[in-house]
Amino acid sequence: MTGITYEDFIDLGYDPDDTALVCEFYVEPAADMDMEAAASRVASESSNGTWAELQVEGSVRDLSATACDIDGDRVTVAYPDALFEAGNMPQVLSCIAGNILGMKAVERIRLLDCDWPEKLTTSFPGPQFGTSVREEIFDAGDRPITATVPKPKVGLTTDQHVRVGYEAWTGGIDLLKDDENLTDQDFNPFEERLKRSLEKRDQAEEETGEKKSYLVNVTADGDEMLDRVDMAAEQGCEYVMVDVITTGWAAVQQVRRRCEKHGLAIHAHRAMHAAFDRIETHGVSMRVIAQVARLCGVDHIHTGTADLGKLENEDTVGINEWLYSDLYGLNDVLPMASGGLHPGLVPELVARTGTDIGIQAGGGVHGHPDGTHAGAKALRQAIDGTMAGVPLEEYAEDYPELATALEKWGTETPR
Amino acid sequence: MTGITYEDFIDLGYDPDDTALVCEFYVEPAADMDMEAAASRVASESSNGTWAELQVEGSVRDLSATACDIDGDRVTVAYPDALFEAGNMPQVLSCIAGNILGMKAVERIRLLDCDWPEKLTTSFPGPQFGTSVREEIFDAGDRPITATVPKPKVGLTTDQHVRVGYEAWTGGIDLLKDDENLTDQDFNPFEERLKRSLEKRDQAEEETGEKKSYLVNVTADGDEMLDRVDMAAEQGCEYVMVDVITTGWAAVQQVRRRCEKHGLAIHAHRAMHAAFDRIETHGVSMRVIAQVARLCGVDHIHTGTADLGKLENEDTVGINEWLYSDLYGLNDVLPMASGGLHPGLVPELVARTGTDIGIQAGGGVHGHPDGTHAGAKALRQAIDGTMAGVPLEEYAEDYPELATALEKWGTETPR
Repeated sequence: MTGITYEDFIDLGYDPDDTALVCEFYVEPAADMDMEAAASRVASESSNGTWAELQVEGSVRDLSATACDIDGDRVTVAYPDALFEAGNMPQVLSCIAGNILGMKAVERIRLLDCDWPEKLTTSFPGPQFGTSVREEIFDAGDRPITATVPKPKVGLTTDQHVRVGYEAWTGGIDLLKDDENLTDQDFNPFEERLKRSLEKRDQAEEETGEKKSYLVNVTADGDEMLDRVDMAAEQGCEYVMVDVITTGWAAVQQVRRRCEKHGLAIHAHRAMHAAFDRIETHGVSMRVIAQVARLCGVDHIHTGTADLGKLENEDTVGINEWLYSDLYGLNDVLPMASGGLHPGLVPELVARTGTDIGIQAGGGVHGHPDGTHAGAKALRQAIDGTMAGVPLEEYAEDYPELATALEKWGTETPR
Repeated sequence: MTGITYEDFIDLGYDPDDTALVCEFYVEPAADMDMEAAASRVASESSNGTWAELQVEGSVRDLSATACDIDGDRVTVAYPDALFEAGNMPQVLSCIAGNILGMKAVERIRLLDCDWPEKLTTSFPGPQFGTSVREEIFDAGDRPITATVPKPKVGLTTDQHVRVGYEAWTGGIDLLKDDENLTDQDFNPFEERLKRSLEKRDQAEEETGEKKSYLVNVTADGDEMLDRVDMAAEQGCEYVMVDVITTGWAAVQQVRRRCEKHGLAIHAHRAMHAAFDRIETHGVSMRVIAQVARLCGVDHIHTGTADLGKLENEDTVGINEWLYSDLYGLNDVLPMASGGLHPGLVPELVARTGTDIGIQAGGGVHGHPDGTHAGAKALRQAIDGTMAGVPLEEYAEDYPELATALEKWGTETPR
């Protein structure tokens, strides 16, 4: 029997082997604590320590995390693989982003980044499609795909909703998208919206000769959500959309499994992420959330606008690069840019993020002075002009919808 | 056709009817924005506005939220019932705690409190048991029930785990509890741990003549979690435990439905709550999370230690009062106090929170100098002494285990 105390959880200079999950934290120690004491408590509380000195036997220490590096306000903690249950994302988060975030031993703490080891990572399925949606679902070449949400985001009747969808699709939009709080309400019921949107999708495909698709928001309690996934598949969808943070990862993993059965892609909306990723010194970074989403297997995820939109976002470019990076054979994820975008912002957005993205505009399509159809044309024109390498002002000489959009919104970020 | 702009979402002095969900936010406007402009954007973005002026028809405005009061840094927003899908908690959160938390229009924003209207509230099931677990599962009278987590929290073998459980139960603990990151790992597999723990539970019941129970952590992806709920029921559990934040509300709602079928109570662990509730000026308050948990139907939830423990916590007493309050016939919830508790803290804890709670101690039981069994006795003695109104120092004269605990830990909060 040996005693186990906080000091057993820190070993600066320890070199974790490649099976470990290595996490980087920002840490501000409590006023009465130095960084080493705080770091040891981060490793302890997130693995198998507690505040009391315990008498333990056997291999308990094999499950302990180790604070192995401190660099200014950054603490690196290595977690042994055996601590984690394969394929169980809630369990992983309960370790690395659980009680430690509330410890009095730290004034502030943020999980900044994870270096995912192969065994744990490949116990998750990853995306079915990722960026290959552009070829496998659409025939969009290497241009950004486009999506739009009917606005007002809730309140349109099903009639109005499908009419907006038709106008957007035929204007050149690839994806009609439900907004994050539109699910199954009386003013626009799920099943009717689904069926009638897909009728209009088929009509728009026929008229444009382009593949079109619909992101129906299946967000609900787990049982209902699976029923909605089934219904989307039966009706001929290529996608479902899930508010991944407000539903939670247990249900996302379940939806991922059901979607594989149906060959459906998953569009992840991230409403509520800013509750824990906005304060730069606390919580969990969007980078980690994007990593979690990729492991769990979403095909698209919103990662912001590289500071061009109406919402705060951290490091869109860095997160997108991670989403594209090699990860033991797991598919990549298509990042979606959204939140206050309009045609005039497209060239700068593409300059910052590249073309391997989706561009989602709501107000920036429907707020066009000549309405949704013209707004959809303007957005697609902005993308086509950008892909052709032509400055938009010049491109707009031949495209009146784009000219009108530029006249209205210029190239400025909305507030 | 009329234009809809941000200004349509504020009407100070507007008196919402009793079908509205009324939310109170803390708001710090962005540097270039006044409070009215920020408040209108909170109401707009969380219901059906956007940044662009839109032409709308019909009854779209019936779905709009209204910023109806500003009091210093507090903004009250009323949401019409029609905006919400009955019984769909992820959808509700995607409205009231979604994109608005990331808006550039606010520097900081926190959802502080909700006033839940009857129709929306009763579309959720609420708890099956709540505080009545004390009579319906245990025969505990009006004393706090007690729980303990084997420590080290992960790393014990199944043999060690069940031995600790047996020692705790026979020492006087009511509930053996898995820790938040113990699920189904090789060192202590779920099914074996479940079966063997329940054998020991039965033995402990026989020896003590008291009802004992086990909180087995079913946290996993949604499909696996339901299988584990079924297995817990088949093996004779009275409870399951769920890490409600890391699993997410969609799965919690699903588990609640499955648990009703089996007559199982739900113990909610809140690991990760501090990611979004710790910074007092941003995110979502624990008060709101506790409300969400009650609507979704958990029977126990951790609400902190009224500042006596090792973890930061907001307003334990106020949250507990809300959990007990009348709510259109929904059952109440038993608050659990945990995180750095030990016997010497029991009288002050009960003085602050009352007796209608569960007291969970891990290190404060197993860290007892004479081990788990003595530690369990000491905790139960502390509760019995407190219920008898006897100062612990005096009570300890007849109870050596309590005397030893007080000698070791005194009445201080651990760090």
